[in-house]
Amino acid sequence: MAESTAIAARRAFEASQLIDPAERDVALAAIRDALAEARDEVLAANVKDMEAAAPLVESGKLSKSLLSRLDLGRPGKYDAMLQGITDVAALPLPTGLVTFAKELGPELELHRVTCPVGVLLVIFEARPEVVVNIAALAIKSGNAAILKGGKESTYSTQVLSGIIARALAKTSIPATFVQTVSTRDEISSLLAQDKYIDLVMPRGGNELVSHIQNNTRIAVMGHADGICAVYLDESADENKAVRVTVESKIDYMAACNAVETLLVNEKVVNTVWPKVANALAAVDVSLKCDAATLGAIAGSPAADKATASTEEDYSTEFLGPTIAVKVVPSVEVAIQHINEHSSHHTDSIVTEDEASMSAWARGLDSANCFVNASTRFADGTRYGLGTEVGISTGKTHARGPVGLDGLVIYKYVLRSKKADGSVIADHEKGGKGYTHTDLPRGNPPF
Amino acid sequence: MAESTAIAARRAFEASQLIDPAERDVALAAIRDALAEARDEVLAANVKDMEAAAPLVESGKLSKSLLSRLDLGRPGKYDAMLQGITDVAALPLPTGLVTFAKELGPELELHRVTCPVGVLLVIFEARPEVVVNIAALAIKSGNAAILKGGKESTYSTQVLSGIIARALAKTSIPATFVQTVSTRDEISSLLAQDKYIDLVMPRGGNELVSHIQNNTRIAVMGHADGICAVYLDESADENKAVRVTVESKIDYMAACNAVETLLVNEKVVNTVWPKVANALAAVDVSLKCDAATLGAIAGSPAADKATASTEEDYSTEFLGPTIAVKVVPSVEVAIQHINEHSSHHTDSIVTEDEASMSAWARGLDSANCFVNASTRFADGTRYGLGTEVGISTGKTHARGPVGLDGLVIYKYVLRSKKADGSVIADHEKGGKGYTHTDLPRGNPPF
Repeated sequence: MAESTAIAARRAFEASQLIDPAERDVALAAIRDALAEARDEVLAANVKDMEAAAPLVESGKLSKSLLSRLDLGRPGKYDAMLQGITDVAALPLPTGLVTFAKELGPELELHRVTCPVGVLLVIFEARPEVVVNIAALAIKSGNAAILKGGKESTYSTQVLSGIIARALAKTSIPATFVQTVSTRDEISSLLAQDKYIDLVMPRGGNELVSHIQNNTRIAVMGHADGICAVYLDESADENKAVRVTVESKIDYMAACNAVETLLVNEKVVNTVWPKVANALAAVDVSLKCDAATLGAIAGSPAADKATASTEEDYSTEFLGPTIAVKVVPSVEVAIQHINEHSSHHTDSIVTEDEASMSAWARGLDSANCFVNASTRFADGTRYGLGTEVGISTGKTHARGPVGLDGLVIYKYVLRSKKADGSVIADHEKGGKGYTHTDLPRGNPPF
Repeated sequence: MAESTAIAARRAFEASQLIDPAERDVALAAIRDALAEARDEVLAANVKDMEAAAPLVESGKLSKSLLSRLDLGRPGKYDAMLQGITDVAALPLPTGLVTFAKELGPELELHRVTCPVGVLLVIFEARPEVVVNIAALAIKSGNAAILKGGKESTYSTQVLSGIIARALAKTSIPATFVQTVSTRDEISSLLAQDKYIDLVMPRGGNELVSHIQNNTRIAVMGHADGICAVYLDESADENKAVRVTVESKIDYMAACNAVETLLVNEKVVNTVWPKVANALAAVDVSLKCDAATLGAIAGSPAADKATASTEEDYSTEFLGPTIAVKVVPSVEVAIQHINEHSSHHTDSIVTEDEASMSAWARGLDSANCFVNASTRFADGTRYGLGTEVGISTGKTHARGPVGLDGLVIYKYVLRSKKADGSVIADHEKGGKGYTHTDLPRGNPPF
């Protein structure tokens, strides 16, 4: 069952490679139109999911925020989903780009050309519109996809994927280019299909990502916790420190790019830190402090929100109105602390010192190294990537906010135009050697 | 033990990030000089490895070719190893390159800058000079490395790595930047150190790669078998067909880019194919043929070298003087056959037809898609990449011959120069929006 799904995806991917990439936009338009037409059908299915979830929310088994994420009927939500397809269609094609081109010898030309990775397996959480979003990204980038949504959105997902498949069937892109599976058992079996599936993208918590990494030979692109830090350097400007720290903490506390740890240079523990502490306390943030930072705010308004920290606090993703605070003697020690405790996601320094900025940008082993800026900027849309596939905390393939170019790889295309074809003996072992001259990158050879 | 090795590598990597990259070349020169000086010591250790291997070769437990690969005393070998370090030092730095630069808003600049992956675990086979080669590549690219050589080269590897560590100790690069481990048990433990190790590179057979993929959460860059194909299209030129097929097969039969399967369009089964068959037979290549290709050469000289094929032959890496041959009705079916049976490494079409070339370059899911050229061109040096870390048959991060740029990833550096720092509220929720204008890519901000 899982194998046949994986094989169907592989075949759909392979067949699609011979189709003009412009057809991908035709397919996206067809899906958009079909979804616009089927709005009532989709919303009816979504109501069934909402009704099934309601008692679980009442009994506390599901969170209220989940119910809100599940709801496609919220004002503007459905139209935003449709607009998302149009937006993806309008992005430049990430495939067919030449990233390296060399003449190896006369009439022997090598081009490295971007192409889709192949077949994606994407596992995600409650929001049903993610099916549509990922389908659009997969189609635009030329990757076939197998999708598994959260079980709370089963009805919505089924209807949405049925509409997508029917819309695809009317285009030159195979209907099995985007498929959906609905059970955990299917995922287990799919994780063994490394012959047919090229990349797994778990969009969920640390636990899901770890579980998948432990159970597949397929490459995994996911993100772990977001344990992000702000560091107030010796030369930190007080106003910048307050603005950056407060927004990084409270703008959206459940986000992976919200700050969880605040490191304070010992030279500013009695100057900048109390100002920041009071600003955080004023917006009701609890402060878990080491002895030095706790002592420095004794008697100030922030003291009421402050308690002593434990070692564990510095490795905790609070996802709420709490921040762990610690003093450090230098930017180097701040970097070491973060490299050891953070999730290598996003960390920001507040400083006026160029040497500290340089050490930060070079020494910090994080996907996003910020200077005097809120950690909340770490986002594909804010970066101007056009869209965001997810945020990767891995160290290979793609890192940080991942746009469409995180869904492509490349192949080398070598073409001989020599009258008798090309063999290495023409160039080696007494042959004429290689020219290895750069070619203009322009268009791919085919 | 394995954990302390991994932690030491991590610390060395992190410390090295704050050091001027020019120091990497200083370290390479120091290693080169130390190895030049210690030639006798290294060769003495190498003789011990050779002596230990000799009885195993005599009793047939090790191959003679392994003994030759093990031998550092062969004329020119040691000097080539030293020259290799100089060559790597001369390559352009793969780190610190800006691959994306955007102004998000006034005085808020984002740069995507290439940086080392981090800590590499490289597992390789008998040739002891690989220790030196990989150490040089790791240092040049700024990655710390843990190396495990073949057990046949234990003495040589130990001495070489000792010299490398002592040479590093005299430079600003930490001595533990390159470490060596010698037992399989250590590898098993290291594969669990995903907190400290970022990338595993097994340079060995399919079995080694699979074993490692099954036993780690760390990203793996390796290559599977090299089951490469040549396809003779309907319009194949006879001379090109002979030259490309014969060299692809016999130039170096143990290589992963040697051809193992020959597909023949049915329209040329009685014209081009017999010429190619006779040329292969003339250089003593055995032909495992399907009924059509076998029938077409009945009575010709090649018939003596031809036998009926089995289905398994089309998924076999012969690594010797044998090729599996099969007729196909079209380029599309040839592509399907290869996508199903090959290792996605390197495949070459012989054709005069632009439409076939285009289908090949787009439809073939292989790292190297060649037109009228020998499969033996698939190599980092021949491609002009400067060096080759290995050949990847994976679909993420790096594919095909991998140069130094396969050992880097990137980080995003966001710098605010605004007088009060930058928060997203400056741009969203009533803020001034984002400018998202491209910046010149030039130098990184730090």
